Amino acid sequence: MAVQPAPIRLSLTDLHESVDDPALTSMTLLNELAGRYPEAISFSAGRPFEGFYDVDDLSRHLTTFRGYLEDEIGLPMEQVRRTFFQYGRTKGFIHELIARQLEVDEGLTVDPESIVVTTGCQEAMVLLLRALVRDERDVILAATPNYVGFIGAARVAGAPLRSVREDEGGIDLEDLERQIAAARREGLRPRACYVVPDFANPSGATMALADRIALLELARREQVLVIEDNPYSVFCAGDSRLPMLKALDEHRQVIHLGSFAKSAFAGARVGYVIADQPVTSDGASSAAPVLLADHLAKLKSMVTLNTSTVAQAVIGGYLIENGCSLTRATAREAEVYRRNLAATLDSLNSVFAPMPGMPHGVSWNAPTGGMFVVITLPFPADDDMLEYSASKFGVLWTPMYHFYAGTSGFHQARLSFSVLTPEQITLGIERLGKLVQDQRGKRLTPGAPDSPR
Amino acid sequence: MAVQPAPIRLSLTDLHESVDDPALTSMTLLNELAGRYPEAISFSAGRPFEGFYDVDDLSRHLTTFRGYLEDEIGLPMEQVRRTFFQYGRTKGFIHELIARQLEVDEGLTVDPESIVVTTGCQEAMVLLLRALVRDERDVILAATPNYVGFIGAARVAGAPLRSVREDEGGIDLEDLERQIAAARREGLRPRACYVVPDFANPSGATMALADRIALLELARREQVLVIEDNPYSVFCAGDSRLPMLKALDEHRQVIHLGSFAKSAFAGARVGYVIADQPVTSDGASSAAPVLLADHLAKLKSMVTLNTSTVAQAVIGGYLIENGCSLTRATAREAEVYRRNLAATLDSLNSVFAPMPGMPHGVSWNAPTGGMFVVITLPFPADDDMLEYSASKFGVLWTPMYHFYAGTSGFHQARLSFSVLTPEQITLGIERLGKLVQDQRGKRLTPGAPDSPR
Repeated sequence: MAVQPAPIRLSLTDLHESVDDPALTSMTLLNELAGRYPEAISFSAGRPFEGFYDVDDLSRHLTTFRGYLEDEIGLPMEQVRRTFFQYGRTKGFIHELIARQLEVDEGLTVDPESIVVTTGCQEAMVLLLRALVRDERDVILAATPNYVGFIGAARVAGAPLRSVREDEGGIDLEDLERQIAAARREGLRPRACYVVPDFANPSGATMALADRIALLELARREQVLVIEDNPYSVFCAGDSRLPMLKALDEHRQVIHLGSFAKSAFAGARVGYVIADQPVTSDGASSAAPVLLADHLAKLKSMVTLNTSTVAQAVIGGYLIENGCSLTRATAREAEVYRRNLAATLDSLNSVFAPMPGMPHGVSWNAPTGGMFVVITLPFPADDDMLEYSASKFGVLWTPMYHFYAGTSGFHQARLSFSVLTPEQITLGIERLGKLVQDQRGKRLTPGAPDSPR
Repeated sequence: MAVQPAPIRLSLTDLHESVDDPALTSMTLLNELAGRYPEAISFSAGRPFEGFYDVDDLSRHLTTFRGYLEDEIGLPMEQVRRTFFQYGRTKGFIHELIARQLEVDEGLTVDPESIVVTTGCQEAMVLLLRALVRDERDVILAATPNYVGFIGAARVAGAPLRSVREDEGGIDLEDLERQIAAARREGLRPRACYVVPDFANPSGATMALADRIALLELARREQVLVIEDNPYSVFCAGDSRLPMLKALDEHRQVIHLGSFAKSAFAGARVGYVIADQPVTSDGASSAAPVLLADHLAKLKSMVTLNTSTVAQAVIGGYLIENGCSLTRATAREAEVYRRNLAATLDSLNSVFAPMPGMPHGVSWNAPTGGMFVVITLPFPADDDMLEYSASKFGVLWTPMYHFYAGTSGFHQARLSFSVLTPEQITLGIERLGKLVQDQRGKRLTPGAPDSPR
């Protein structure tokens, strides 16, 4: 019998601490839980609706994009081939189409040279956070609860985050001012503030127009950049749509993160960042400034070289086929999300409103769009309770405290309705109602033996 | 006339120092130079040969991969669609096909679960370097001259590099031992050593079998991991092909970086890392270890979430269509590279051997494969000389000192012949000969007025 040589062994304590980050480890556990209860109705997946996907579309998008290169750009065959197959421009090659989309959908004119096409919005966050944190004094502010991908990007980029309160109307501007002042008193440099102005993930909060303007004024006064992440505004009902922060930005204070994950498709991993801020190389205004986008591109050349050409071509074709309008491209999906939001709010009303003793302890917000509703429960909504909910009642949700880095949200759950049917939503909320009844029963009998906490 | 509001201004000194890294800034300048002299014959591009690319192949690869999911894996339509369009498995979905390719081409059996599919080999380097550097004591050894992408990955990941000498036979093992000892005396922890064992970029060096075995023994004795990067061995002539380090690795000391950039195509941005090292979470062998691959996947979930599904599907289809053999898939390219290598060496011989006073001062190495030859010149081969060479003689090459982080190689140039025809190679080397004659003339007339340095 051959003796198997002993492998080398590494210790977790010898690896960078970000591999063991509690928030991300929790998300991994949540995914595993969803895998263990495949029959449960899942309000935890933040994935886009997939009912309209068709694999045949991909080849058509490639053909459309090829036609664009040949006919509209007028590239000779050899350069078309090079565009598809070779290492390419670090900032990407669909920047003109993205600029056109922003013009069509948002009335926003941006210099295509200020756009860096990235491997999903996630890479854009990493590049930006890596660039903005020069030394241990630099700190990034973020409206909290926070998108878990932004927390992860900050961990891997080594960027310290500082929480700013968020309420139904988005980031709390008074708290932002307080946090900036507090950071400065501690000798820190607040560099930028991260916000999701429309239907934030996970809170569903949306900022009013006056607050958007006030945020930009505050940022200008305090010389802090604004990082705008806005993947959901495209799903807003037409009339109620507010201008993006970047569309209100007169002083190039806003760095805008864009995503095609919720519009075209998530697997493509194509996003972008608009970084039109001039960067001077010696602080003197005489030196010709380059754009922050070009510095981010240098970092990108060290992380992924360039965004996959095939993925860019597919997204490029998708944009062209839809007249460079994401609003037009996602009309069917937007209808599904509006229908599902209504079904979620209706079900919450019909299950919880008539429940005896309610509304004490159970409440929820009512966003006007997006993919998420937050419910507050009369008992701790933690990982143990989630497992109990999945195993005993067949319903999954996401504990909110993960999005607060474990400092708040202990009684809250995020309900994501994007991939469900209205029937599943109704059934899922009914199951959630049974969990609440079950827990109320336990609270009436103190010391119940199998309480999950 | 509307007054344009003054934009916010950032200063380069407020951004992370990696955006201003000298090696990468130089590479950007070199690319610009190539753009300014489009008619020059360029020995500087390290791009793969592009003569066999056909845009129609992409859709066929997608169809092939779809057939594999449906027929071989047996996925129902809904899951096929999800694989193409949704967020996916962080470690990727072509890991089984990659494992099959390694079995077919290298006789290497790897657990597919130890493979992380990455956004090109570049992302794999970043993830790995980020994971291995826990604190300021950790240091990575690297055979030098060094692939500029590895230098870049180290900069962005914050991993300090320490150079180890390399000669015609690859990494100098005595120097490696010396550097490990020196690092330990300084209180540092050498974690891993980076090598390209076959036809290294930029040196063209190849390690003999005995040296490969000795490297693994040294690494085991010193408890240092080996990072193997091997994109060129597939282009080795059949009989002379040596086993990869990973194929000789009995103790799981080797972390193998894989790339499809030089075989399938660079734009796809699909690579991978094999990281089958067990990681214990408390140092005790009783705790069930997880693979290093799973920790790298956690970092990947913070950098790009997953590798583009479309890009993976295209590479998957390419592998399937070629019986999972890269040797078979790249037979035509390998023939081109062998032909071009021969043309380069022949031209160097015919231009420089008969030159009066030669071989004094001009010499070159003679790799048996790969994409690069290194020439040593009797004058400084720096960026100024390169511009002079391009403007006056119409020939571009890459100054080698960039790959030594500016510590050596001042008289050397890398000649990359991968994208040229034999006719262009002959003409280019003749032009290089004229540059040498020109510089010899200047040395004979001291104080010549327009000397480029």
